[in-house]
Amino acid sequence: MSGPRTIPSSMRAAVLQEPGSVTIEERPVPRPADDEVLVRVNSVGVCGSDVHYFRRGRIGRFVVEKPIVLGHEVSGTIVDVGRDVSRDRIGERVAIEPQRPCRVCAHCTAGRYNLCPNLTFYATPPVDGAFCEYVTIHAPFAYPVPDTVSDDAAALLEPLSVGIWANRKAGIVPGSRVVITGAGPIGMITTQAAKAFGAAEVIVSEPNPGRREIARRFGATRVVDPAVESVSELGVDAFIECSGATPALTGGIQSVRGGGTVVLVGMGADEIALPILLIQTRELVVTGTFRYVGTWPVAIHLAATKQVDLDALVTARFDLDHTVDALDSDTRPGFLKAVVTP
Amino acid sequence: MSGPRTIPSSMRAAVLQEPGSVTIEERPVPRPADDEVLVRVNSVGVCGSDVHYFRRGRIGRFVVEKPIVLGHEVSGTIVDVGRDVSRDRIGERVAIEPQRPCRVCAHCTAGRYNLCPNLTFYATPPVDGAFCEYVTIHAPFAYPVPDTVSDDAAALLEPLSVGIWANRKAGIVPGSRVVITGAGPIGMITTQAAKAFGAAEVIVSEPNPGRREIARRFGATRVVDPAVESVSELGVDAFIECSGATPALTGGIQSVRGGGTVVLVGMGADEIALPILLIQTRELVVTGTFRYVGTWPVAIHLAATKQVDLDALVTARFDLDHTVDALDSDTRPGFLKAVVTP
Amino acid sequence: MSGPRTIPSSMRAAVLQEPGSVTIEERPVPRPADDEVLVRVNSVGVCGSDVHYFRRGRIGRFVVEKPIVLGHEVSGTIVDVGRDVSRDRIGERVAIEPQRPCRVCAHCTAGRYNLCPNLTFYATPPVDGAFCEYVTIHAPFAYPVPDTVSDDAAALLEPLSVGIWANRKAGIVPGSRVVITGAGPIGMITTQAAKAFGAAEVIVSEPNPGRREIARRFGATRVVDPAVESVSELGVDAFIECSGATPALTGGIQSVRGGGTVVLVGMGADEIALPILLIQTRELVVTGTFRYVGTWPVAIHLAATKQVDLDALVTARFDLDHTVDALDSDTRPGFLKAVVTP
Amino acid sequence: MSGPRTIPSSMRAAVLQEPGSVTIEERPVPRPADDEVLVRVNSVGVCGSDVHYFRRGRIGRFVVEKPIVLGHEVSGTIVDVGRDVSRDRIGERVAIEPQRPCRVCAHCTAGRYNLCPNLTFYATPPVDGAFCEYVTIHAPFAYPVPDTVSDDAAALLEPLSVGIWANRKAGIVPGSRVVITGAGPIGMITTQAAKAFGAAEVIVSEPNPGRREIARRFGATRVVDPAVESVSELGVDAFIECSGATPALTGGIQSVRGGGTVVLVGMGADEIALPILLIQTRELVVTGTFRYVGTWPVAIHLAATKQVDLDALVTARFDLDHTVDALDSDTRPGFLKAVVTP
Repeated sequence: MSGPRTIPSSMRAAVLQEPGSVTIEERPVPRPADDEVLVRVNSVGVCGSDVHYFRRGRIGRFVVEKPIVLGHEVSGTIVDVGRDVSRDRIGERVAIEPQRPCRVCAHCTAGRYNLCPNLTFYATPPVDGAFCEYVTIHAPFAYPVPDTVSDDAAALLEPLSVGIWANRKAGIVPGSRVVITGAGPIGMITTQAAKAFGAAEVIVSEPNPGRREIARRFGATRVVDPAVESVSELGVDAFIECSGATPALTGGIQSVRGGGTVVLVGMGADEIALPILLIQTRELVVTGTFRYVGTWPVAIHLAATKQVDLDALVTARFDLDHTVDALDSDTRPGFLKAVVTP
Repeated sequence: MSGPRTIPSSMRAAVLQEPGSVTIEERPVPRPADDEVLVRVNSVGVCGSDVHYFRRGRIGRFVVEKPIVLGHEVSGTIVDVGRDVSRDRIGERVAIEPQRPCRVCAHCTAGRYNLCPNLTFYATPPVDGAFCEYVTIHAPFAYPVPDTVSDDAAALLEPLSVGIWANRKAGIVPGSRVVITGAGPIGMITTQAAKAFGAAEVIVSEPNPGRREIARRFGATRVVDPAVESVSELGVDAFIECSGATPALTGGIQSVRGGGTVVLVGMGADEIALPILLIQTRELVVTGTFRYVGTWPVAIHLAATKQVDLDALVTARFDLDHTVDALDSDTRPGFLKAVVTP
Repeated sequence: MSGPRTIPSSMRAAVLQEPGSVTIEERPVPRPADDEVLVRVNSVGVCGSDVHYFRRGRIGRFVVEKPIVLGHEVSGTIVDVGRDVSRDRIGERVAIEPQRPCRVCAHCTAGRYNLCPNLTFYATPPVDGAFCEYVTIHAPFAYPVPDTVSDDAAALLEPLSVGIWANRKAGIVPGSRVVITGAGPIGMITTQAAKAFGAAEVIVSEPNPGRREIARRFGATRVVDPAVESVSELGVDAFIECSGATPALTGGIQSVRGGGTVVLVGMGADEIALPILLIQTRELVVTGTFRYVGTWPVAIHLAATKQVDLDALVTARFDLDHTVDALDSDTRPGFLKAVVTP
Repeated sequence: MSGPRTIPSSMRAAVLQEPGSVTIEERPVPRPADDEVLVRVNSVGVCGSDVHYFRRGRIGRFVVEKPIVLGHEVSGTIVDVGRDVSRDRIGERVAIEPQRPCRVCAHCTAGRYNLCPNLTFYATPPVDGAFCEYVTIHAPFAYPVPDTVSDDAAALLEPLSVGIWANRKAGIVPGSRVVITGAGPIGMITTQAAKAFGAAEVIVSEPNPGRREIARRFGATRVVDPAVESVSELGVDAFIECSGATPALTGGIQSVRGGGTVVLVGMGADEIALPILLIQTRELVVTGTFRYVGTWPVAIHLAATKQVDLDALVTARFDLDHTVDALDSDTRPGFLKAVVTP
């Protein structure tokens, strides 16, 4: 195990200078605050939001105004600790929950730290992320992972957390019937999580035939081509929208039984016309997910027991020098998830 | 107290023949089924939905295709009982919960009988309502009311139930801050119910200055003219939409804090463009109310203890012969609620 | 498929005359009420409560005061239907939910029909059960089962429902850690259900070494001999007591973390000294299960997908003539569950 | 308003040296940590736990092993702030939530900071409380109070928080029926809070006739002498035990309807024999309260709107020199609550 002596003073980082332009820079290795750990990065997943910042330079009110390091799906090894953290943690393989809540506001003390107005998040402007060699994080948000979870899988506990949070919001329990729209990485993780939560039926609607095939492989009990078949009469307990496509949302909402739940995970248009009368007469609950709260322990359990297969999602792997290629790889056929290993 | 001997074989009923046309007909007095009671009607409130059927002949998928008796806000006196009901109930002054769930479907056995697909409801085509002299209802849905609740107030326990259900869905608890849009009868009942549920702030947004004045009288802690002032920065715990107006909904939804609740009560457009991104990033819960479940006992308590003043809502009273005037009275200045007393 | 023509007028029934004495009697085949079905019994599990009535003649306030037919874990085939039930159901293989709620009281309409004060239950004095050839039940409480669920397994959906209800009350979700005391049939079913609900750790405490072995076979992640090892320091999320033994309860309650849940399933002493101060300082939630609500659909799913193996619980099978032996078979070594097939 | 210049270096404190012995000592004024405020104490309520430590030197596992300052019901004025707190807060009149959670453990991040294993609490050994001139607290736990809340009432927001937390745990909503045992200060606060939460019936059982009279004054809808009358047949929604007396608990638990809730607030015996069979067959939920989470905002609202009258609880007032008398005043007839004003 490596101790603090081996930590260099500077590191390499892939920096988004402006939309489309990523360069490798030498940067100082960050120092952990008193309650933080320093993590040498092992694997970083590429998220759709990274690609979005890379291509367009903004997501909603978050705008890339100065150079930023992207990447927020991270695993690594603790190499140093702040003053208040046990040195025994040095050497731990960890998965990182990439957010820093303030811990003291009304949201934080009520157990909704994801809604903390003071929260900062890796790779959300202007906060740097993890396409680099070293990062710091609050000590409790660096979760030790067992050997049965690979470095890549440990990084992908972050999108798995998105899927777990979506299933919690959707109220998936043993026997639930759920429609999921979109068979991209988040859809496939959410599908697997739904199975792990006990869903009896997981119906995935996806226009791309290759992705429908993938959905079947990841456990969908039924796949639907929305161009051919509607889900609107299914009367399911919950609908989880993972595509960000407007027709997926407006179609899927019809599929939910009275008293059921609609969870918006995919991000697309800022505004969409929703069937208000249907929401009223069926007393649907429509909500969305924003990051997650307290999901890593469950995510580790699901990954370690292979109830969710994260390694199978990785279809391309890049080193830090090719981060720009990783960010640009989502157009390849059969592509699901790229990973950068610094 | 009157016994079954005094029940005539026929009664007078105000029948909507077609939009705009109401005639008084002689009809047979209904007979209570084994588990029902026969109620001589004392007071019937006029609801916006009655007016809607009267003027347009339909609400959504419910269409007036043959003559129908409107009216579903009903109080009366039990004058006869079905075979399985104790004759001791004859003579009771009661408020009626005007729905007949099937009691055996999955919704009914799960405690969501308002969503029962087999449910019938007074004055919802093709089921007759209560602008007549006698009606029948399941025995447990005829709730005895104390003398401190007037006949009119007993009838208006139905809209109060709407307001209670809305407050339950909105999660109003002591200290809650809530925005309510629309200061019509439902808005004013919901405002009073919010106070009774312990809301610390009830901010009512209403374009009509006379109605804003009424809102203040019924307990709003603050009234807002939406033409002048926005509620969007208030960060309230819940928003209850009672106007059915699209701008009220789209404006009000902005007023809710992260993790807060939006409840759609007013009925307007079938589809409305909603700020999806806001719902996601604030993890708002958007839902609607459809009738109610188990609200009468609470409604009776709130009315009997004068925590909610229902009598003050009644601004016009008509006999059965003038039901058509009652249905047409909502354009008078200062109008809130008409009542028909057969 | 058999139609009503083949239904005889009388049937054989195993009748408990008094504690210890069971005789076979000829009895009239019951007629289904309008909303009921008539079921020819295929398999009936023997429950600890049947054995209790057989040996002692009472459970709490329920006393065998006149001859009674025991048995309430039942599968069969619909052979006739009441007037309000579709004749298409004749021929269905079904599992029976053996209770008849009144459907109209406050508990029933609130979705808590198991607490209905008017509820009657198979084999609970003075209501007859199913150690006989034909029984009737409300149509919706005869649930069709797929071919992948055997007759025995269909009967044992009843104890599985107990286990599902216990897990629901315990709040078991993916990742939960739970202690279960008692490795009898209910403990083993609850263990399997806990796994199906996603529990990461299921620690079974059981003094009998043979049963500990069985617990391991049914999926316990750890087994504990309470004579040697205490569970009190485990800090689990929930504790489900399935033995009815006082020391199991008082020991197990210590094992629960702050804010965790204790569910009493096993029935033993009427009163037990509980650590009140612990309940307070840890804000534990202590509750119990009484039958179940809405569990059959989930039970069918878990059995059909082999997430719960019910057939493996059956260690002895008897015909109706040997019902008394079935009731007396629980002392055999390795015994778990007896089944009577009329 | 006073600034930091006026803060002396030492202060007077009433120190419990050993059971029964309190002396006034000169002690250094504490310095606020970076995220804390320094509060000049205005009023401190005497709690039963203070009296317990004063008389017996211990409560459960908490033992007075060295001199300690008691008192944890505190109001005051901010006179200095730590580095991270706005100096604008200096001069604020505040009520103090007297606990310091760690903010980072699983309980804290899940919104259950009262169960934080690292939490320290005023006047719980070995942590000093507030019978002194100055105390420090986390800035967000010093809540500004409006002028309509007196210094004494501001201090008593702490026991009001106990009552609010009890009512939340009990699930009190408009229309609830609740039995409360014990008409001491906590019982009377809980009674008032139950009314504010909308309880339709608050039945207070209390053996002392004088206290029954007080209960009536504080809003009990009915008072019961347990020596004469049992509450066991009431079938209430919830029972809140505020006396710590074993018969109160065992009697009160019988009064709860199926599916209802029992909340243990009063502290008495460590172990009590509970009717397990009743808990099971009625599926009661038995739980307890340990301090509170997020109650001050609601408490301020209830006090400021006079829904709860805290000033009326104060029956004796002492200066710091007479803290020992304050701790010994609970035996006076008519006594409810003593307050120390340093």
